[in-house]
Amino acid sequence: MSTLELTKQLMARASVTPADEGCQQVLINRLEALGFTAERLRFGETDNLWLRFGTQSPLICFAGHTDVVPTGPVEQWTSDPFLPIERDGKLYGRGAADMKTSIAAFVTACERLLADQPDYPASIALLITSDEEGDAHDGTTKVVDVLRERGELIDYCVVGEPTSSTVLGDTIKNGRRGSLSGNLTVIGKQGHIAYPHLAINPVHTFAPAMADLTREVWDEGNEYFPATSFQISNINGGTGATNVIAGSLNVKFNFRFSTEVTAEQLKQRVHAILDAHNIQYELAWSLSGQPFLTDAGRLTEVAQAAIAAECGVRAELSTTGGTSDGRFIKAIAKELIELGPINASIHQIDEHVNVADIEPLSNIYQRMLVSLAV
Amino acid sequence: MSTLELTKQLMARASVTPADEGCQQVLINRLEALGFTAERLRFGETDNLWLRFGTQSPLICFAGHTDVVPTGPVEQWTSDPFLPIERDGKLYGRGAADMKTSIAAFVTACERLLADQPDYPASIALLITSDEEGDAHDGTTKVVDVLRERGELIDYCVVGEPTSSTVLGDTIKNGRRGSLSGNLTVIGKQGHIAYPHLAINPVHTFAPAMADLTREVWDEGNEYFPATSFQISNINGGTGATNVIAGSLNVKFNFRFSTEVTAEQLKQRVHAILDAHNIQYELAWSLSGQPFLTDAGRLTEVAQAAIAAECGVRAELSTTGGTSDGRFIKAIAKELIELGPINASIHQIDEHVNVADIEPLSNIYQRMLVSLAV
Ligand SMILES: [Zn+2]
Ligand SMILES: [Zn+2]
Repeated sequence: MSTLELTKQLMARASVTPADEGCQQVLINRLEALGFTAERLRFGETDNLWLRFGTQSPLICFAGHTDVVPTGPVEQWTSDPFLPIERDGKLYGRGAADMKTSIAAFVTACERLLADQPDYPASIALLITSDEEGDAHDGTTKVVDVLRERGELIDYCVVGEPTSSTVLGDTIKNGRRGSLSGNLTVIGKQGHIAYPHLAINPVHTFAPAMADLTREVWDEGNEYFPATSFQISNINGGTGATNVIAGSLNVKFNFRFSTEVTAEQLKQRVHAILDAHNIQYELAWSLSGQPFLTDAGRLTEVAQAAIAAECGVRAELSTTGGTSDGRFIKAIAKELIELGPINASIHQIDEHVNVADIEPLSNIYQRMLVSLAV
Repeated sequence: MSTLELTKQLMARASVTPADEGCQQVLINRLEALGFTAERLRFGETDNLWLRFGTQSPLICFAGHTDVVPTGPVEQWTSDPFLPIERDGKLYGRGAADMKTSIAAFVTACERLLADQPDYPASIALLITSDEEGDAHDGTTKVVDVLRERGELIDYCVVGEPTSSTVLGDTIKNGRRGSLSGNLTVIGKQGHIAYPHLAINPVHTFAPAMADLTREVWDEGNEYFPATSFQISNINGGTGATNVIAGSLNVKFNFRFSTEVTAEQLKQRVHAILDAHNIQYELAWSLSGQPFLTDAGRLTEVAQAAIAAECGVRAELSTTGGTSDGRFIKAIAKELIELGPINASIHQIDEHVNVADIEPLSNIYQRMLVSLAV
């Protein structure tokens, strides 16, 4: 069965996070036939899967997720998001790009490789979760704990997240920025708008600090990382009534940060700015990922060579974009990259992947397996 | 029947704005007996009432409203808000201070006056609405239109709003600030928080303008008016999701302004600040009241003398606080003040008035009627 057909089979399963909807059983059926050993690791509501072929070094791992983000308003889709359909050279449906095509490509790459080289001289694993798009508490991070516990460490890991920008293979992620979130409550004193001297308007006390926070240059980035970015995602204050001064103001913000600053430094600098403006506040922090990096080396070179041979494209290394489960796996993987299809339509209405990119992606993964085992 | 008894009778009617619940009929019954002529003026859902005694000049008008604000959570009240009850020298219930005591005091002041002086040589009117606490579209402003139309102009108007601060009669309002509201939408471009360069964060573009707006000194006020006040009442941006940059930001703000600036000038200055920061925005203005002022003169002197005689208190003139229907009546009244009980508990749980203030308030109104007719 072609990668295209397997992709469609997986996309037809409405595995909205954290549901797997039997996708992992499809992978087990295909890969056990090749000699892989399947280990189901269910934590809470999350199905995880560790599939391994061989015992030799190096261990090369493909990682990914079977869950998808919700469809959004179904009536805005041109066709049913869970009835995968080809139109004008594109395959449409939820999960097309993020990331059922990559998962199918993992499987068919292994199938062709092991048909060619039944005595493949390395180990291959698949680390699959069904909770990457959700809160991810019971997903890859828990599987990594199990593997670390028993000393099953990864030499090379390829996460199949959609990293390509314009054409297949143009971008490899060799790291990701850290992500640090803050939930700030500025405390004022509610009152009638006609008696502002009896109230403390938290919007007003926060205004100069907000101007400073949005103006601050947190760092300049470095060779691998863009400058650290601060963004306020949500700001809410007020009772709805137009004659009442709010008693408090809630502000949610997030840093995507480079390896030039630490989460601790960012926290201290935010507190310093708030304290400089004499604001009464409560601030809860949440660190959802430290930045990680795989220096240019064996894995990035093999990936670039495979892409060049298959697509004639020179792949750039990048660390931009959202977090991925790479942040967890890097702890037990010597080298880790992310490489997958074009990401322009992910998490959107009418998500799609180019049909003509599907078999080449599988070929790239196969070429990498060949090169890394040498 | 005492002013206290009549106040309780009115308070027992749950006339939550814009309902009158028969309060005005109670006034009609009492005052028609004295020779007043009642004219009901119903507009939309709003009951209004014009009661007049006599045809001679000057025309002295008492103005007020029978509607009350909602109770809020009834379980937080010590006793039923619509079962007026005396405890520890206070009369508790919704409308006690704002403003059924004043309305009752109008009536009993007229009753005692006309018992003393059946040939009272001036005219007395009551202008009563049931929509002062609501949007006020069909209330006093419409009655004023009718009176202006037929040339029935007022010489002296006393609005019974609760103006006293610490003791009965300590404060007379001889004017009110203007009120100008703005509903601002800052337009950005929604995006993922990991790709801020593809989005325009409206919270960030607005931040420096917000700092400037809250820092601006709009004027210094004058002899009668405190400095113009700018307050943001509501600010809301964000989808709720912490990884999405909002597409727009909504900000509601309000000016309480003195006679040192005009609404037009305030609008221009806000636009100038926004435009200086190169923000894309939409801004809808709403002028809910021009500032008005009665200079110290006959009416303020008579009121101060009545208060001094009744309570031994020196009344201050003030223009602070919220808007009132005085802003409409001033257009057809030569002189207008607001004078009523202590306002500390208005619009709150356990609203109350001092029982010992009730008859003195009626006496103050009666003394004023006596003096103004001379
Ligand atoms: Zn993904
Ligand atoms: Zn009132």
